[in-house]
Amino acid sequence: MPDLKSYIDHLYCPKCNSIYPHEAVAHLCECGSPLLAAYDLARAKAELNKADIAGRKEDLWRYGELLPVLKEENIVSLGEGFTPLLPLQRSGEQLGVAKFFVKDEGLLPTGTFKARGAAVGVSKAKELGAGTLIMPTNGNAGAAWALYGARAGLSVKIVMPEDAPKITRSECLYGGADLYLVKGLISDCGKIAARAVAGHGWYDASTLKEPYRIEGKKTIGLEIAEQLGWNTPDVIMYPTGGGVGIIGIYKAFRELRELGWIAGEMPRFVAVQAQNCAPIVKAFNEGKNVSEFWPDSSTVAFGINVPKALGDFLVLEALYETGGTAVAVSDDEIVSGQSELCAREGLFACPEGAAVYAAAGRLRKDGWIREDDSVVMINTGAGIKYPDVRSFTPPYLPLDAELQTP
Amino acid sequence: MPDLKSYIDHLYCPKCNSIYPHEAVAHLCECGSPLLAAYDLARAKAELNKADIAGRKEDLWRYGELLPVLKEENIVSLGEGFTPLLPLQRSGEQLGVAKFFVKDEGLLPTGTFKARGAAVGVSKAKELGAGTLIMPTNGNAGAAWALYGARAGLSVKIVMPEDAPKITRSECLYGGADLYLVKGLISDCGKIAARAVAGHGWYDASTLKEPYRIEGKKTIGLEIAEQLGWNTPDVIMYPTGGGVGIIGIYKAFRELRELGWIAGEMPRFVAVQAQNCAPIVKAFNEGKNVSEFWPDSSTVAFGINVPKALGDFLVLEALYETGGTAVAVSDDEIVSGQSELCAREGLFACPEGAAVYAAAGRLRKDGWIREDDSVVMINTGAGIKYPDVRSFTPPYLPLDAELQTP
Repeated sequence: MPDLKSYIDHLYCPKCNSIYPHEAVAHLCECGSPLLAAYDLARAKAELNKADIAGRKEDLWRYGELLPVLKEENIVSLGEGFTPLLPLQRSGEQLGVAKFFVKDEGLLPTGTFKARGAAVGVSKAKELGAGTLIMPTNGNAGAAWALYGARAGLSVKIVMPEDAPKITRSECLYGGADLYLVKGLISDCGKIAARAVAGHGWYDASTLKEPYRIEGKKTIGLEIAEQLGWNTPDVIMYPTGGGVGIIGIYKAFRELRELGWIAGEMPRFVAVQAQNCAPIVKAFNEGKNVSEFWPDSSTVAFGINVPKALGDFLVLEALYETGGTAVAVSDDEIVSGQSELCAREGLFACPEGAAVYAAAGRLRKDGWIREDDSVVMINTGAGIKYPDVRSFTPPYLPLDAELQTP
Repeated sequence: MPDLKSYIDHLYCPKCNSIYPHEAVAHLCECGSPLLAAYDLARAKAELNKADIAGRKEDLWRYGELLPVLKEENIVSLGEGFTPLLPLQRSGEQLGVAKFFVKDEGLLPTGTFKARGAAVGVSKAKELGAGTLIMPTNGNAGAAWALYGARAGLSVKIVMPEDAPKITRSECLYGGADLYLVKGLISDCGKIAARAVAGHGWYDASTLKEPYRIEGKKTIGLEIAEQLGWNTPDVIMYPTGGGVGIIGIYKAFRELRELGWIAGEMPRFVAVQAQNCAPIVKAFNEGKNVSEFWPDSSTVAFGINVPKALGDFLVLEALYETGGTAVAVSDDEIVSGQSELCAREGLFACPEGAAVYAAAGRLRKDGWIREDDSVVMINTGAGIKYPDVRSFTPPYLPLDAELQTP
């Protein structure tokens, strides 16, 4: 772990440009927008080199200068980061794409990319003296914050739809969090959490209602660039619920360009959603800058069942600014994509990752992804967290069975 | 990935000392014992330095010189290795142990340490021209070999007890393997697999019936030593079913001593088993060199439900040679240990890992673990693969709920 020398400078509102100090607890801007962390990149550019990073431990804290935590003693770590960027060679050949990679976020503590946001978010909450955290969640974020919260010694309260992946309940409760279930969506859970924050002054860890989770997610982008030898791919594909992943990766690449560590065109960002919960896709297709609440949403890829994202305008900005696009895939495509990806590549992705895989096939057929593009798809979690997507009935053998050649 | 320059020299039988070439497919010795890989460590010592390793990618292939794969093109990788060695500070304070660490093998592809054996074992099987692999499994090894087999393009057949963790069925089937269930134990599955090997000439990937899985497991030991600055801890604790982990780590430390990369006393090895499946513990307590079949075995830690291990004599040798010990814990201790570890440290371990945690408490109370010992416990997998160890009934909230302070 490097000595920490964070270049964080202040927080700012991407909507109304207000400035806030980073030394105090901050949630939303007075205008209602999420806040983002700004770093003194000019000074970082003068003082910091790519080579300084190269020799460090392969976890996300190697980018400590571009993270908000000030003191090493506040780092709450379960060994997160530097997930593999794996070639998907057979799939690339099948699709006709020169370079096709998956960033496998299943290899993080708690089995999903949510660990990045939780590691940085909980560390910073601890540094800022938070006592009790509360958050609504579609399951995996709550699990991650509960476990990092346990490691930090903080009190954690989680509000979760009853349909969220069952294993995430266990993670919260094993971690000692207070877990509450709701017969509703994450948006319903969010209202309950918001009332509790208002009533008790608890630290609001809802998506984008504190500015540091996104800094954790940003490290996906930092890692991809470093893993490609400080280059970026032509296309980045992300399953999009709350959208923090896209916002974070986009922010990473912008900061790296300001540092002069990467150059050339920005990758084209692709937001992938499910057909029955596609508010960003609809807004993108209509050329709008914000999305509308998507009624009666449902999808097997539960992590992207987010009918209205607080940071929708930031996601859409990333798509527009990079010449990207937004794609909705059906649950059938997700389920069959998950099996196809696993049988071809040995990667048991979560349904959200499978959605992106399915979308890659669609975009290649359309010609939007070109033959000579390098494409990085993000698999946001491990398939083992979703045992119920497909059911199997394998055959039984008697003890004296003789196996036949098929 | 480094250029491969394996120092593998030959295979040998640790029982009768017969020698076999490493260039051909090899399974058991003619005497029935497992075979082990031997390296030209004298030449490696002359040509290779610790510093050569330091700058390499943090995966298990960084130790390519001490692994059996000859050509880089044969490496089948899902990004495995270099799992974190995390301090367990609160637990250490609670137990009164100066330095207490967990090596968290849950952060591997497929969520368990079995990925190491599968990565190296499948790579070598591919290099040797294997077509169809078959193996009996308690679940996680089968899942790992199925997925690495899929990535290698090999045909895989898995025979599994019906009581094995359900999610491992999905992993096998998503990966395209042929999966068969058996109403019995892994030993029953082994007999079916053995007949199929005899009948069809399939590649026998059973525990220790091919010599390379252990080479993958060996990398746990190589990593621990490197992560401690080329030192070893005083105590290594391992949940012991087939025992390949202990055999592998012990082999790693012996090879590192021969290279001169580590010095001093060997760590004391501790084999942890479940009270209702403790053949190694029984043999150790009786001072025997082999174990007896444990009838009617059962435990919540299914991965260590192995009534008779083919490599038992190698495990016992590691315990005797290092001044180690063997401990059996109850299922109650495992279940409560899992919760305690998670609430204290944020680590959601598998029940096998929790068994080791419980055993550490016992050995510290006994005084066998001393206050100034440094202890490394191995958590062999992620708790998320075992959703049914405890059941919870979290409370439901109505949509208009107001949360109260507890």
